[in-house]
Amino acid sequence: MANDESAETLAGVGEFAVIDRLVGQRTQPAAVTVGPGDDAAVVAAGDGRTVVSTDMLVEGRHFRLDWSAPEDVGRKAIAQNAADIEAMGATPTAFVVAFGAPAETSADDALALADGMWQEAGRFGAGIVGGDLVSAPQWVISVTVLGDLAGRSPVLRSGARVGDTVAVVGSLGRSAAGYFLWHNGIDAFDELRRRHLVPEPPYGQGRAAADGGATSMTDVSDGLIADLGHIADASGVGISVSTAALAADHDALSDAAAAAGADAWGWVLGGGEDHALVATFSGAPPAGWRPIGTVLDGPPRVLVDGDTWRGNAGWQSFA
Amino acid sequence: MANDESAETLAGVGEFAVIDRLVGQRTQPAAVTVGPGDDAAVVAAGDGRTVVSTDMLVEGRHFRLDWSAPEDVGRKAIAQNAADIEAMGATPTAFVVAFGAPAETSADDALALADGMWQEAGRFGAGIVGGDLVSAPQWVISVTVLGDLAGRSPVLRSGARVGDTVAVVGSLGRSAAGYFLWHNGIDAFDELRRRHLVPEPPYGQGRAAADGGATSMTDVSDGLIADLGHIADASGVGISVSTAALAADHDALSDAAAAAGADAWGWVLGGGEDHALVATFSGAPPAGWRPIGTVLDGPPRVLVDGDTWRGNAGWQSFA
Repeated sequence: MANDESAETLAGVGEFAVIDRLVGQRTQPAAVTVGPGDDAAVVAAGDGRTVVSTDMLVEGRHFRLDWSAPEDVGRKAIAQNAADIEAMGATPTAFVVAFGAPAETSADDALALADGMWQEAGRFGAGIVGGDLVSAPQWVISVTVLGDLAGRSPVLRSGARVGDTVAVVGSLGRSAAGYFLWHNGIDAFDELRRRHLVPEPPYGQGRAAADGGATSMTDVSDGLIADLGHIADASGVGISVSTAALAADHDALSDAAAAAGADAWGWVLGGGEDHALVATFSGAPPAGWRPIGTVLDGPPRVLVDGDTWRGNAGWQSFA
Repeated sequence: MANDESAETLAGVGEFAVIDRLVGQRTQPAAVTVGPGDDAAVVAAGDGRTVVSTDMLVEGRHFRLDWSAPEDVGRKAIAQNAADIEAMGATPTAFVVAFGAPAETSADDALALADGMWQEAGRFGAGIVGGDLVSAPQWVISVTVLGDLAGRSPVLRSGARVGDTVAVVGSLGRSAAGYFLWHNGIDAFDELRRRHLVPEPPYGQGRAAADGGATSMTDVSDGLIADLGHIADASGVGISVSTAALAADHDALSDAAAAAGADAWGWVLGGGEDHALVATFSGAPPAGWRPIGTVLDGPPRVLVDGDTWRGNAGWQSFA
């Protein structure tokens, strides 16, 4: 190779040339009036409101580059942010991404990260409209997502009412199972290990829940019981969940749990990062949603089969 | 003290309790329909568009905690993002902030960071509407800002036309001078050292420039010549700057330059991070803007007193 190897690192290629590669050849959605390349982007906000949320992923804490390909990291970063918008009953429309990485990072890896982001955002017609590229001791990816309620009222965590049905859509426990398998070097159950690297939120179901009369909603990022606890706290209600209604989730993980000597219920009830949606409905949940419990009188608490859950209390950032 | 000292760290207080402290007692602006505490925030976008930009600041790279108080870091992070919105001719309305920090970080320092952010955002009536708090090996702060064009057309970098007047508002070279003083341990010129820690963008002047017919605009984040280069490239024009028109900026730094054995012109023409605004106008610039040059025929280039600038080419992330 005649080329200097350093030319293929972020430092060798240079910030502005890397950015040119990152934003080149991308087709922005119609909602984007001004895309990357100026001081800021301009995005349509059709109903006069913007829904906004942000998440930061730190290498070694939220992902490992010996487990995840850069594309996987990009897909995960977009998916988990998009799920926050879904959980409001809105549709994600645009993302901005700040990426910190060491100077010796390969420019190809940075491009692959961006490719994964565009691939995931493309699943619901959104684009990456802007970003920042900086030097950092390890990879740090900070994504902010904008969403469109299209005239709907936002579905908050605080709207659950006594007697509502609790329902879920999307997978539970897969990411936690996958993490356990990766962490313990169990080289099987590829689909579960894959789900830990790239979650699959039920895109479009947040909007469906809002249209279907959801009274409260959140996405399962910390763990089902922990996230239902957020709804219980915000709404001032109790929530009762039935394991019988979650048998299918448990059964999907039982082989892996047996092979790994773990408890599948811990994954189903305590595992986060699948970004399923959980909501409460005064009537019947929309098609595809699985009823798993009911809303009780206060005080705020979450009961499993009538009892306090004593397993994993969910993800904590500084634990 | 009877309290366990560890209780005052992020790990001791815990993620959710820290977030409660961070968002408690804050008054959100009227544009914020849903504030912190749910999966996402909802912000008014009055004219059906949202302006959005993001910047990441990494400890040791963009700030040093032995130079800056946490409040200063918060103010800087908000100021530099707000300047990107000003540079489009818009007004910053809302911010989301992702904050990564070691578990042993003091909760008081995290609160002081947030206080600085609220203080700076309050200067133009904006609020922090959401965020993320995660564990990281060093402080990483990623800010995304939303802005409101209030019906105006965004002022892009690409609109400069031959014969336009180039004008600037806000300070030049102060942050670079301050950095040089800090870096060389020169314990004088407090105001310049202060300006390096907390820039003072000319809030409101981006909107004034748009209303005053600005044909192109950017903020001085990389350095005057480098940022004018971005306008020259995007507009396909040359830009000529006169040092005579910048004499006041030079003179304000000459004592510090003499004491430090440095070149004040390097700071004025090459120093970034003051977040002044520079724009082009087909007519007279608005009140408070200083004419500093003219727009020439292409090719894209920036001339200083008719010649190529051979000094500091501006900030590069991986240099």
